[in-house]
Amino acid sequence: MASRKIIMDCDPGIDDAVAMCLAAAYPEEFEFLGITTVAGNQTIEKVTENALRLSSFWKIHAPVAKGAAVPVLREPLTAADVHGGNGMGGVEIPPSGETAAENAVLFIKELVDKLPEGEKVTLVPTGPLTNIALLLRVFPETAERIEEIVLMGGAICGGNITETGEFNIYEDPEAAAIVFDSGLPIVMCGLDATSKCGLKRETANRLAEEKGLASSTVGAMVQFYLNGPAYGGQPRASIHDASTFMYMLHPEIYKSRRMVVRVDCSEGLNRGMTVCDTRRKSNGRPSNTIVLTDADGEKFQEYLLEAVRRMDERMR
Amino acid sequence: MASRKIIMDCDPGIDDAVAMCLAAAYPEEFEFLGITTVAGNQTIEKVTENALRLSSFWKIHAPVAKGAAVPVLREPLTAADVHGGNGMGGVEIPPSGETAAENAVLFIKELVDKLPEGEKVTLVPTGPLTNIALLLRVFPETAERIEEIVLMGGAICGGNITETGEFNIYEDPEAAAIVFDSGLPIVMCGLDATSKCGLKRETANRLAEEKGLASSTVGAMVQFYLNGPAYGGQPRASIHDASTFMYMLHPEIYKSRRMVVRVDCSEGLNRGMTVCDTRRKSNGRPSNTIVLTDADGEKFQEYLLEAVRRMDERMR
Amino acid sequence: MASRKIIMDCDPGIDDAVAMCLAAAYPEEFEFLGITTVAGNQTIEKVTENALRLSSFWKIHAPVAKGAAVPVLREPLTAADVHGGNGMGGVEIPPSGETAAENAVLFIKELVDKLPEGEKVTLVPTGPLTNIALLLRVFPETAERIEEIVLMGGAICGGNITETGEFNIYEDPEAAAIVFDSGLPIVMCGLDATSKCGLKRETANRLAEEKGLASSTVGAMVQFYLNGPAYGGQPRASIHDASTFMYMLHPEIYKSRRMVVRVDCSEGLNRGMTVCDTRRKSNGRPSNTIVLTDADGEKFQEYLLEAVRRMDERMR
Amino acid sequence: MASRKIIMDCDPGIDDAVAMCLAAAYPEEFEFLGITTVAGNQTIEKVTENALRLSSFWKIHAPVAKGAAVPVLREPLTAADVHGGNGMGGVEIPPSGETAAENAVLFIKELVDKLPEGEKVTLVPTGPLTNIALLLRVFPETAERIEEIVLMGGAICGGNITETGEFNIYEDPEAAAIVFDSGLPIVMCGLDATSKCGLKRETANRLAEEKGLASSTVGAMVQFYLNGPAYGGQPRASIHDASTFMYMLHPEIYKSRRMVVRVDCSEGLNRGMTVCDTRRKSNGRPSNTIVLTDADGEKFQEYLLEAVRRMDERMR
Repeated sequence: MASRKIIMDCDPGIDDAVAMCLAAAYPEEFEFLGITTVAGNQTIEKVTENALRLSSFWKIHAPVAKGAAVPVLREPLTAADVHGGNGMGGVEIPPSGETAAENAVLFIKELVDKLPEGEKVTLVPTGPLTNIALLLRVFPETAERIEEIVLMGGAICGGNITETGEFNIYEDPEAAAIVFDSGLPIVMCGLDATSKCGLKRETANRLAEEKGLASSTVGAMVQFYLNGPAYGGQPRASIHDASTFMYMLHPEIYKSRRMVVRVDCSEGLNRGMTVCDTRRKSNGRPSNTIVLTDADGEKFQEYLLEAVRRMDERMR
Repeated sequence: MASRKIIMDCDPGIDDAVAMCLAAAYPEEFEFLGITTVAGNQTIEKVTENALRLSSFWKIHAPVAKGAAVPVLREPLTAADVHGGNGMGGVEIPPSGETAAENAVLFIKELVDKLPEGEKVTLVPTGPLTNIALLLRVFPETAERIEEIVLMGGAICGGNITETGEFNIYEDPEAAAIVFDSGLPIVMCGLDATSKCGLKRETANRLAEEKGLASSTVGAMVQFYLNGPAYGGQPRASIHDASTFMYMLHPEIYKSRRMVVRVDCSEGLNRGMTVCDTRRKSNGRPSNTIVLTDADGEKFQEYLLEAVRRMDERMR
Repeated sequence: MASRKIIMDCDPGIDDAVAMCLAAAYPEEFEFLGITTVAGNQTIEKVTENALRLSSFWKIHAPVAKGAAVPVLREPLTAADVHGGNGMGGVEIPPSGETAAENAVLFIKELVDKLPEGEKVTLVPTGPLTNIALLLRVFPETAERIEEIVLMGGAICGGNITETGEFNIYEDPEAAAIVFDSGLPIVMCGLDATSKCGLKRETANRLAEEKGLASSTVGAMVQFYLNGPAYGGQPRASIHDASTFMYMLHPEIYKSRRMVVRVDCSEGLNRGMTVCDTRRKSNGRPSNTIVLTDADGEKFQEYLLEAVRRMDERMR
Repeated sequence: MASRKIIMDCDPGIDDAVAMCLAAAYPEEFEFLGITTVAGNQTIEKVTENALRLSSFWKIHAPVAKGAAVPVLREPLTAADVHGGNGMGGVEIPPSGETAAENAVLFIKELVDKLPEGEKVTLVPTGPLTNIALLLRVFPETAERIEEIVLMGGAICGGNITETGEFNIYEDPEAAAIVFDSGLPIVMCGLDATSKCGLKRETANRLAEEKGLASSTVGAMVQFYLNGPAYGGQPRASIHDASTFMYMLHPEIYKSRRMVVRVDCSEGLNRGMTVCDTRRKSNGRPSNTIVLTDADGEKFQEYLLEAVRRMDERMR
């Protein structure tokens, strides 16, 4: 099978960083055309600097473009408590170069324009969907060249930032609504599956002690998670964003179902919820999303460790 | 253990009827002070007539009072397609007598006033919460004499009338918000548990053929469910409302968890959702509800059949 | 013309107190059946105590019943900064007796039941509409005996507590929606008219110095308004609530128009707005309200002073 | 005084067409850099074709770029009943040339980039604010080169498409919220002023009979208004959009006030309302808009006729 052309839209962020490591381990599967950034886990300046460093560190060497500093409609939040002051759990990745562009939307549009005829790109958003929504509104013609959007965000049942709101969607519900209503093929890697996918505490501790550069880096980052407010006292830290690439590599470890997904943009208690129609008889709309409903967490950790070991080799 | 004093607030409705049959089978457990009605599954006239007939038919012989014809704020719905034109799946129960009062709220208030000192009543709402909400607002002093509210309604995850809205709560979200915010002890028998509790098609068919009056009546009603829009083609029909009394009889067949529950009263996609905080760290509010999260459906059917057989005896 | 039978539902409150003074001056016009209270300008305890004192002080001698302490759906506000710690601008009215009932809703229902056949009552709400809404929901049959509801609340254009929300409606929008949607004849004395109706600073100062008990009391109360946050530095203080009785005495000093009025119960910026359809072609609904759109402020002051002087006589 | 550099963003539309005529009459005042279109009064295809024709017909000869076909978040409406099947009241303007660009947002960005250092542009939106909102989000750096946004839209008091919603804002409230929250200097020409500014029926009839090309065209278009659903039976048709340019030419015929304006993006009754804080003490936010509150309609008609006569000369 030919490799997928990837544009990753991210806000690194520890789990974005590990997701990149996973993708980087399989260059025969994922050809990165570019990496764009969006304010989310940290400010746009910090996540852009992190994306630049990670692109080089993981030997992806994709051009990086800076994206939206604020959501489509409301004020931005950050998750500095979860991801640390530098957004990377305090782990230092060496600095590296400059952004290729200061405008993620224009950058994606231009990458898409340069695609050989008949080829398409897979978008992998692991942060708020601001850039993707603006792209679809300002350059609607790009939709034709998008193979699929494999995103981390949302939840059928139970949020993390509010009772029913997952951080990426809650941060910019209007953007999410634009993306889910776009008619494009979407895979939603939401909390129902991603919260079962992570690294166990003892695994993270062991990795952190290893000599391999990927192992020790991933281990240290996940240790930060496990000692912080999100996972303190828990036996495992979720690596939400990594399920995007993991699903493309190993769809068999996930359960999924086609559904109608809409986004609550009201000002009520459920603002930012991905409203998934799980009823036997849905509301009659055509299903617009493949929703991951469950995952095999053991397999996830096994495959993730395999990728990290591969990267230890490549980075030696 | 002494019996519980019960005021049932209902909109019969097939599952209300079966719930009453279950309670009627254990008069040593449930002492019915009264039955009040509320528009929901059918109009207030029809559900009141049904409550009158059922109170006599099941030998409960509790006084019946007619309640709210419309929700607190919005226009009423009905579920005539699910419960049939007479609200009882076309099954004919013999007429019986007159209502004891035309005002359910006042009726409950007076029942509560007559309680011997130190005694309390358990409210069992199996319809929209309109009457209970109005009671709590107009006669707030009655709250002190309410032991617990064991209600059928809501869902942690997945509705039946909208993506996330369960019928009873969706029909009157403002009433539900008043009840859940009241500070009273609440047991929420929601779809997460009740949709696992019902009768299998072959069981309903067998019951319908039996000679016992309770068996044949319950069987025929549930057959109507199974042939109608709600359960057409399904192997089992849920008897949602019966979980209220079943939980009081056999709490061990349910899983439950204390949670903060709020009700979405916005005009968004999730209007009428019971927003349950399932997060490890909740939003800091004190938990206000025991939410049934799962149920043993086999045991439910077994215990329900036991009650029906008891009623066959009593009604002989 | 025969006098009108009045039930006043209020939260005194300086302008409620002056409204009562105005009504008290014309016993041949207004026959008070009762006075009910509602939390609003101050807590239910304080406004009830104030209503008791005022009923006696103004020689109305109507029975007083205590009403709703909280709105239908949300948490209560007060306006202690505007009306002072005792709700009467610090003016001391002598204590007087006990409430006739602790339940305003039941009290109104019973007053209505006692009306001679064919007679009706005019409700005059000058606070949040909580009691009236609960009355209409719990005892819908009382609607037939209500002649008209002449209320102070709302605004076509421009609020006082938010950009578009007037205090009484904003305090309990759900109650207001129930009342406006009830189909009963309503006169809305909103800010468009009432903010033009008050006493000038020099007039208030002059009154405060007079010997007459009504004059000095009204003068002192309005001085409190004029020195407080609501009217500080303004040449005139509005006496919003008094326009209810003034409209019944002198409709000719008001402009009015029949309109469709609905209430914004959303959680948006306009929560609590009375949405008045002023378009040439309205939305097709039947008009449900006579909205006062303008007033002759000079005439209002003139007529109000006339009433105060009358009361000086009666209270001598 | 030097001329203003103008980018007009419009959805012609009869009043857009007349607004253009007004601006075209004063080339010494208005230097058109470009005209962009947005779906609103008619579909994006029709309004773009109309803009092309009008740019040539009125001898503006500015490049035209096609803009947003759909609002930021929701489904589009049109106002075909008001503006006719061709959006121009059935009046035929000769075809003319091609669009300069298919992407209004990018086109504005590029026009702004080409401005000589130190110069700024005035945006004149007379349709929904979709393009401007997307511009501000995707190219936030353009904000520095925007002198002012003089827009037709909104109302302090009373809408035209709903009780409180004006068409342009109601059509895309999220876009409007982005623009009003942008911090840029805004002049809001809303219904409070624009509904007083138009042409009288007898004037339109007289114009329609004249030989001058501008007169007869404007006359015929306004006759369509006057015979249609919006102004049927009325003595005058409003030419809302023309107040943008008229305000820049003759600010003295308008009353205005600095205010805080926010946009209701809720799903309630007031969705799409421009919430203007007219209170003596506002909510503490800095005022962000000059709102036109009233207008001298006689002067407006006089000045508009002057412009039309000028155009008769220029088009001879």
